[in-house]
Amino acid sequence: MLNQQYKDCIQACLECMEACNTCYHACLKEDDVAMMSNCIRLDRECADICGFAAKAMQSNSPFAEQICKLCADICEACGQECQKHEHEHCKNCADSCFKCAEACRQMVS
Amino acid sequence: MLNQQYKDCIQACLECMEACNTCYHACLKEDDVAMMSNCIRLDRECADICGFAAKAMQSNSPFAEQICKLCADICEACGQECQKHEHEHCKNCADSCFKCAEACRQMVS
Amino acid sequence: MLNQQYKDCIQACLECMEACNTCYHACLKEDDVAMMSNCIRLDRECADICGFAAKAMQSNSPFAEQICKLCADICEACGQECQKHEHEHCKNCADSCFKCAEACRQMVS
Amino acid sequence: MLNQQYKDCIQACLECMEACNTCYHACLKEDDVAMMSNCIRLDRECADICGFAAKAMQSNSPFAEQICKLCADICEACGQECQKHEHEHCKNCADSCFKCAEACRQMVS
Repeated sequence: MLNQQYKDCIQACLECMEACNTCYHACLKEDDVAMMSNCIRLDRECADICGFAAKAMQSNSPFAEQICKLCADICEACGQECQKHEHEHCKNCADSCFKCAEACRQMVS
Repeated sequence: MLNQQYKDCIQACLECMEACNTCYHACLKEDDVAMMSNCIRLDRECADICGFAAKAMQSNSPFAEQICKLCADICEACGQECQKHEHEHCKNCADSCFKCAEACRQMVS
Repeated sequence: MLNQQYKDCIQACLECMEACNTCYHACLKEDDVAMMSNCIRLDRECADICGFAAKAMQSNSPFAEQICKLCADICEACGQECQKHEHEHCKNCADSCFKCAEACRQMVS
Repeated sequence: MLNQQYKDCIQACLECMEACNTCYHACLKEDDVAMMSNCIRLDRECADICGFAAKAMQSNSPFAEQICKLCADICEACGQECQKHEHEHCKNCADSCFKCAEACRQMVS
């Protein structure tokens, strides 16, 4: 059975992965792609580490805590970048990033 | 916004990824690890392709359908292996695999 | 020991992964990011499937051939997009993509 | 062009990823699978973080150093486990893990 202490954090990671991948796609279709380049980069990075962290918790990795600590830092950076932009997908993504950063920090503490 | 046609399939992939990673961990702790070696191998492979397929749909990849077609085949193989075993985590995993294979096939058709 | 029949194909995949990730970063820093958006998207997708294919061959996955077939298609698409652009990193990436597509097809045949 | 300071570290990560995936497959086919279960688990984890670190360096991620620091810790743990076993693939894997841990630490310092 899935480690219960990890449950909320896994959920936050999977939602953040989805928000980031959705925002990544939407940014690449915006008129002002140039302005979104940091957002695109961080969306990819954040989506990937969230998937990595979910896998680590789901498979009870001995490194789950260290991976979640890194995940929190990347989510924080992605959220900071996303909240600079007015696009709906960026606002949604920033929300998911900050929630996931918080969930990862709580899991580690 | 997330492509709505993909919504159910993404959910099935994320649930299957979790079931496979959970089963992977549990198999590695069973007394009869040797008997579980194919299950361990397919759990890893299936969890990874499910995460890959979810990412493809979430980011609206032009290859989403081809990736889901492959995902369906790997889920089918993993489900077939898992249902040979009596462990609760294997039974759960087989269920998630068959559901995900079905969702991927419907998405492609 | 590493499966020898896979050796050249793994090498081509790892080189293509590097060329795609390098091109991805460089495209995001170009002045004409908007014109590079398809290139950015395909670079990510191609880098990720190349890494996935390398892992499949290295771990002797029963799905290595199917994964390499998909990899060949994605490499082909990425190479076609990259060769439309004059940037040095795009030309290098197109070369690596076509080489990898060829190696994957030979491995499968 | 690929960031030159990263070149050696990327190479070490890709070699370690290969050694770990090769060892993972070989462990699953050993007679004494039960004794290899920690090795199998760490091989997967180490192969995956090595691929992740290579991608981060290749795409000039702002988190490349933090990811390499984590990679060094996981390589160290995998090397420690692998060197307990007499199998040739485990000895090779331990070598690659320790080399990669060293390369990651140098990159970060």
